[in-house]
Amino acid sequence: MTQTIDPETNHLAVGKPTRRLDAEEKLTGRARFSGDMSFPGLLHARLVLSPYAHARIVSIDTAAALAIPGVVAVYTADTLKMAKSHESSRSQSPLARGEAFWCGHPVAIVLAESEALAEDGAAAVDVDYDPLPVVIDPLAALQPDSPLTRPRSEDETSEIAGGGTHADVGTAQAEEEEQEELSLNVSDRVHMHSGDIEAGWREADVVVERSYRTRSVHQSYLEPQSITVVPSKGSHKMTVYASSQGLYSARSDISDALALPERQILVEPVPIGGAFGGKFGLIEPLAAAAAYATRKPVRMVYTRQDDLLAGNPAPQSFITVKLGAKRDGTLVALQAKIILDAGAFPGAAAGLAGYLMSSVYRCPNTDIRGYEVLTNKVSVGAYRAPDAPQTAFALESTVTDLCHELQIDPLEFRRQNGLRGGDPSGNPRHPVLPPLGLMECLDGIEQHPLWKERHAQKEVPAELAGWKIGIGLAVGGWPGGNDAAAAACRLESDGTVSVVIGTVDLTGSDTSLALIAAEAIGLPASQVNIAHDATDTMPYSGGTGGSKTIYSMGPAVQAAAQQARQQILQIASDMLEAAVDDLEFKDDNVVVKGVPGKALSLQKIARASTSFSRRGPVYGQGRTPTPDNSPMYAAHLAKVAVDPDTGEVRVLDYVAAQDVGRAINPPAVEGQIHGGVTQGLGWALFEGLEHDEDGQLLTATFMDYALPHSFDVPNITPLLIEVPSGIGPYGAKGVGEPPVIPVAGAIANAIYDAVGVRPAELPMTPERIFNALHQ
Amino acid sequence: MTQTIDPETNHLAVGKPTRRLDAEEKLTGRARFSGDMSFPGLLHARLVLSPYAHARIVSIDTAAALAIPGVVAVYTADTLKMAKSHESSRSQSPLARGEAFWCGHPVAIVLAESEALAEDGAAAVDVDYDPLPVVIDPLAALQPDSPLTRPRSEDETSEIAGGGTHADVGTAQAEEEEQEELSLNVSDRVHMHSGDIEAGWREADVVVERSYRTRSVHQSYLEPQSITVVPSKGSHKMTVYASSQGLYSARSDISDALALPERQILVEPVPIGGAFGGKFGLIEPLAAAAAYATRKPVRMVYTRQDDLLAGNPAPQSFITVKLGAKRDGTLVALQAKIILDAGAFPGAAAGLAGYLMSSVYRCPNTDIRGYEVLTNKVSVGAYRAPDAPQTAFALESTVTDLCHELQIDPLEFRRQNGLRGGDPSGNPRHPVLPPLGLMECLDGIEQHPLWKERHAQKEVPAELAGWKIGIGLAVGGWPGGNDAAAAACRLESDGTVSVVIGTVDLTGSDTSLALIAAEAIGLPASQVNIAHDATDTMPYSGGTGGSKTIYSMGPAVQAAAQQARQQILQIASDMLEAAVDDLEFKDDNVVVKGVPGKALSLQKIARASTSFSRRGPVYGQGRTPTPDNSPMYAAHLAKVAVDPDTGEVRVLDYVAAQDVGRAINPPAVEGQIHGGVTQGLGWALFEGLEHDEDGQLLTATFMDYALPHSFDVPNITPLLIEVPSGIGPYGAKGVGEPPVIPVAGAIANAIYDAVGVRPAELPMTPERIFNALHQ
Repeated sequence: MTQTIDPETNHLAVGKPTRRLDAEEKLTGRARFSGDMSFPGLLHARLVLSPYAHARIVSIDTAAALAIPGVVAVYTADTLKMAKSHESSRSQSPLARGEAFWCGHPVAIVLAESEALAEDGAAAVDVDYDPLPVVIDPLAALQPDSPLTRPRSEDETSEIAGGGTHADVGTAQAEEEEQEELSLNVSDRVHMHSGDIEAGWREADVVVERSYRTRSVHQSYLEPQSITVVPSKGSHKMTVYASSQGLYSARSDISDALALPERQILVEPVPIGGAFGGKFGLIEPLAAAAAYATRKPVRMVYTRQDDLLAGNPAPQSFITVKLGAKRDGTLVALQAKIILDAGAFPGAAAGLAGYLMSSVYRCPNTDIRGYEVLTNKVSVGAYRAPDAPQTAFALESTVTDLCHELQIDPLEFRRQNGLRGGDPSGNPRHPVLPPLGLMECLDGIEQHPLWKERHAQKEVPAELAGWKIGIGLAVGGWPGGNDAAAAACRLESDGTVSVVIGTVDLTGSDTSLALIAAEAIGLPASQVNIAHDATDTMPYSGGTGGSKTIYSMGPAVQAAAQQARQQILQIASDMLEAAVDDLEFKDDNVVVKGVPGKALSLQKIARASTSFSRRGPVYGQGRTPTPDNSPMYAAHLAKVAVDPDTGEVRVLDYVAAQDVGRAINPPAVEGQIHGGVTQGLGWALFEGLEHDEDGQLLTATFMDYALPHSFDVPNITPLLIEVPSGIGPYGAKGVGEPPVIPVAGAIANAIYDAVGVRPAELPMTPERIFNALHQ
Repeated sequence: MTQTIDPETNHLAVGKPTRRLDAEEKLTGRARFSGDMSFPGLLHARLVLSPYAHARIVSIDTAAALAIPGVVAVYTADTLKMAKSHESSRSQSPLARGEAFWCGHPVAIVLAESEALAEDGAAAVDVDYDPLPVVIDPLAALQPDSPLTRPRSEDETSEIAGGGTHADVGTAQAEEEEQEELSLNVSDRVHMHSGDIEAGWREADVVVERSYRTRSVHQSYLEPQSITVVPSKGSHKMTVYASSQGLYSARSDISDALALPERQILVEPVPIGGAFGGKFGLIEPLAAAAAYATRKPVRMVYTRQDDLLAGNPAPQSFITVKLGAKRDGTLVALQAKIILDAGAFPGAAAGLAGYLMSSVYRCPNTDIRGYEVLTNKVSVGAYRAPDAPQTAFALESTVTDLCHELQIDPLEFRRQNGLRGGDPSGNPRHPVLPPLGLMECLDGIEQHPLWKERHAQKEVPAELAGWKIGIGLAVGGWPGGNDAAAAACRLESDGTVSVVIGTVDLTGSDTSLALIAAEAIGLPASQVNIAHDATDTMPYSGGTGGSKTIYSMGPAVQAAAQQARQQILQIASDMLEAAVDDLEFKDDNVVVKGVPGKALSLQKIARASTSFSRRGPVYGQGRTPTPDNSPMYAAHLAKVAVDPDTGEVRVLDYVAAQDVGRAINPPAVEGQIHGGVTQGLGWALFEGLEHDEDGQLLTATFMDYALPHSFDVPNITPLLIEVPSGIGPYGAKGVGEPPVIPVAGAIANAIYDAVGVRPAELPMTPERIFNALHQ
């Protein structure tokens, strides 16, 4: 269901449900991924992972491994040549040097003529470890007397633990209060504040404070981390086929790692089997270094266990939220403390978490502190709306409790306090927020039967006798990213149009970009193809992520297509001897308006503008700055049933309203919402990387790490709200991140509505709900 | 030595001697050509060639070949699936069907796991031939009673032998005279005429008529015909690495052959080891069909013998020229009959030969007939200035004899009668000729000591006692081709600039295009790279050939670079807070004029315009029509010594004046002239494919086919004449074809000057000169 507030919707291609361009090759199994690449002399890589969460590496004996026929090389941090030891960057320092920092830390890489031989070789590498004290609990890790997760260099620590001035945001405050005593395990600290929080508490009639814990969860893409690197014999070039979200970022990571000029590394586009933020440069430097050292093609494909042990999952969090409101429902104080467990290397983005906490509600007095702390666990990375599911779970749970205390309808409270376009942005460059649809999402929810008939909905059906039913609301927002982008647009000899981009196709982005191009030219979508180009020659593209592709790459595609349209019309004008203004596109022809039969097929125009032609070929170009973000909001409503006897939770129905600006390809947008909500259900009810006290991962297979199954996923109704962006083509905003954000909060609020207990921990397993009910 | 008539020569990059971009990878052996490509499962192809010049194929038994372990497949015309049997196209019908038409005609293709196995397989294919009458002599082949070279279909023959109206050019004449009775072996016939030839003869005071014969010569590129085709398992795509002059033309040839959409064929750029016109689609369809049939990668690399037996050399010719002039030296009548021996398939371009005959001198009355005739020899293709060395040899020899009869200085005659810019063009679209430098070339020759001191130069040195020395002049011209072209231009992260093109790099074209881009941006040449792109994504480019690359692709590169320059300046203007007009390029910086230190490196500008930038990336685009040709002329002077006792000819000195418009990279231009003159010496003195009366090739190896050796090549002095083209960037014209054109004529005229006999046959071997001297 789509609700648009934009009257200009008479589009030819945009908004038309369109089959994904990648559907056929993926459904038929013809797509060839980076792990399917084969080259003469290909070597297969397998990692030796540390079995200890923290240990000194006394020695590594590779002789037995190298004695296996077909094992070609074994490299350790000491023998694999890389540009420098970037101790603070996991990808640039991929093999443990001297110490292993987590259970799963790669210690050596084995290259062999087959996967099986590489596996045998890895098993035969003899590493002598001397176990060291482990730091597993991030709260303990914060304490000044905590053992250290790993040695910390002066550089890494000075600006954090010293003065706390790193990334501080807000008004001038007494710096002495920042002098908290913290462990050197703290790798980042932010403090964002506005107004006067103490005045806020004084003004508040009601104050609610709650604490929450979430678990580290894994992106669990279908295709594990994988890459094939082929050092060329023919030139300086190394050719890379990486399951990566960004071709240029993969290139620059490898360039850094090997101290090679970027133009000596060619990254070719390949289809990728899911990423969700987790595929930005984790394994590229290691695989490239191995290929560079052997001068042979190297393929590295993680096993699922490798991916769980040595991937880059989302951080677990410990969040305390304290809110104050006046009796009339006005929010006047928001305080939060966010602790993110980064694992062994920094990267949990505490600043982003803080920003997310402060960018949903209007509040004059805020005080938000974020801490990133290192522990002996796998280091974290981005996962769909990084830090947002955690912060939204905490904030939306607390807001709902505040509404309960105030006896105010939770939807009304959000309408009263939620951010609106035109509110102050806090960004001096653009002092007010652009159009954003949080209110319209709430309107959508309010009109939906699940909300309108929420009291009737809570009636328990016979088959759930004894269960309790609850309905929960939560909202969330995502700022969106920015990037520069360029694209080209050609007319093909068969009369179709190709858009040339370097954007990695994820979640149907190619198809949406094709629709934008089709609309801009005036052609049906079936006439437009997307062609991908490699880093040496492609128009610039940033990585696919951050829910920015449609509104940063989209305008470049639109501009390139518009230019191609003008070129086509100019050629047709010459050939038909008619003014450009008198011409129009009709299917795959350019016709003279009102003169039936005076027409030229695009095929003829293509031929007339290429081979030995005296006309210029059709070749449009677009390059667009995207100076502003296009923030995007969602409001979710969940209906759950809770069995008070067991704590089991079933999600019975789900409504997800989301401001998408303009749904370029509605089923793709709905698919993203289905997927995002499903991943949110994983966060809410099932998933979590669990470690024992020694740092051993207890959930290192999909038998132990619980992803939602199809029968766990309810009917999900997406409500596409279209509050046009001023930036994206045809008003489009990003879509990918928002749908995961409010889910855990909506489920928690529904559980609260059903059984009256406030879940404080994710995932909300039956055990945890049962314990809460019986405390 | 460069003589320019353009005062505007203050260039930063253009005109600066610049090392070729491809030098390093070619000199170090790192370049990987199409025949170096290897892929898992690669099959090697070897052809079974007909040992008969004309034979019925009774049967082909492949059993013994297929019984060899490692021989994977053997295909014949009947078993290799291709779109259709294009009997009139050799490349589309690459295997003999029913009959073999020349000695060397491919009858079967053998695919095996190694080159040696493929060779063994080819030897084991048992073909039963039934020999048929052969047609070897093209003059005999013209006769109505000649046996047929091969069966001729109604389609192929109707428009030729029937009415002779095919390609007729000129004023209306009585069509009955066209009803000459000719054999069906004649595959093309043209008649071009202007004025009234009979009136011309009446007006003439002196008439000279001469007949000439030239031999078929081979392009003899370093790298033989080669290709690797990889059918992708991953998509519909077939990837092609072809030693071809045009990526799009290779794609469309394969598309035609396999009836596959063009976008299912991806042609990748590879370096190529020489072509000279001979690498346009000869073997691509066959190799692609074999790969398509087996679904395996197929590599086909001609042996040198394959290339001599089954390549596509230049046609041999029989030319009669009759000229009439008034006593004052005014040319008033030009009649010519040109017979081109096309071998077994059409392609000798009789129309072009006729055009070339009429586009050197002003003459009011012309009558030129051209005939293309089929014989049982390998079919011909393009070779550097197709048909021009043959016609120039005939025309320039006759002109010199005419001068002798008129007792007019041959340079003066050419100045008096040679074409000039502004002369009528015969082309209704552009009725007058553009600026062309034939006169300026003659001026250059006239100033050169070899001409000025020609009488002293003829003194015989002691070591050549008994020899005679002569000096000969000849001129020639080439119309140039046209093509549409597009290019892109990026700023790289290291601050260099890349030009993205699809043009195959030949004779240093990449380097010249880089200089054009550098000049347009305002950067030193060392800051500019060329990046090649494949057919799916590249800006459109035609084939590299026809001496058109610099003035058809060049303007697109120039436009793309200029656009990139503007984008760079715009970004710098924002960042430096200075007006665009106040900025300039200085080395790899953009600086504010007159404000030392207010500068931005291109590296910084690149970074500021890509990764997560709010500015647009630098991405310039150029697309240019090239509506007009840019004709190019040359005048050559040769000094030879002839031994009257043996007929041996030694070339002692050589001056080649050529109007290049603007020498973009002077040493590359000079290199082209050295190479062209050397190939011309091959035509003149050494080369020729010789057949016996059964059509057996007697010169099927480089032991028998005589290429010039280094000691045969004299000092060659190029005189670069710069009469700016109105079309090419910075005035540049094409360079490649002209230097081969006048050589045989100049050598013949020098021999005539030395010993007083008129050579009538190429190559001018000692035997032929001796016979002429003693007739």
